[in-house]
Amino acid sequence: MTQVTLKVDMMCEGCVGAVKRVLGKMEGVESFDVNLAEQKVVVNVTGNVTAQDVLERIAKTGKKTELWPL
Amino acid sequence: MTQVTLKVDMMCEGCVGAVKRVLGKMEGVESFDVNLAEQKVVVNVTGNVTAQDVLERIAKTGKKTELWPL
Repeated sequence: MTQVTLKVDMMCEGCVGAVKRVLGKMEGVESFDVNLAEQKVVVNVTGNVTAQDVLERIAKTGKKTELWPL
Repeated sequence: MTQVTLKVDMMCEGCVGAVKRVLGKMEGVESFDVNLAEQKVVVNVTGNVTAQDVLERIAKTGKKTELWPL
């Protein structure tokens, strides 16, 4: 199990719902937590799914997406 | 030139911006208008781009998307 943490530009519950729907459909995603106030998305993935895979999928929502700053 | 009209579940300007960014990157899209109040997205496409192509691309934003009811 790998944990991927992203910073995603979300403005409302509609934005949050969109990110959740995309993650809910993504293969290899075991669980996730989306925090609007922190603009933080934490995703637990299995198998061959990489952080880059998750980032690219979420970026398809049209929201500014980057790896969480270390 | 073909015009595609969609109903997209958008709640805020962040949702609108996401849809605009996705359309702005889509090949074959000549122009578009996104109306938050009406939940209406009008897209002018060229070439082989179909309404289904546009619908599928916008659906990747995670927002509920359907063809505008006739």
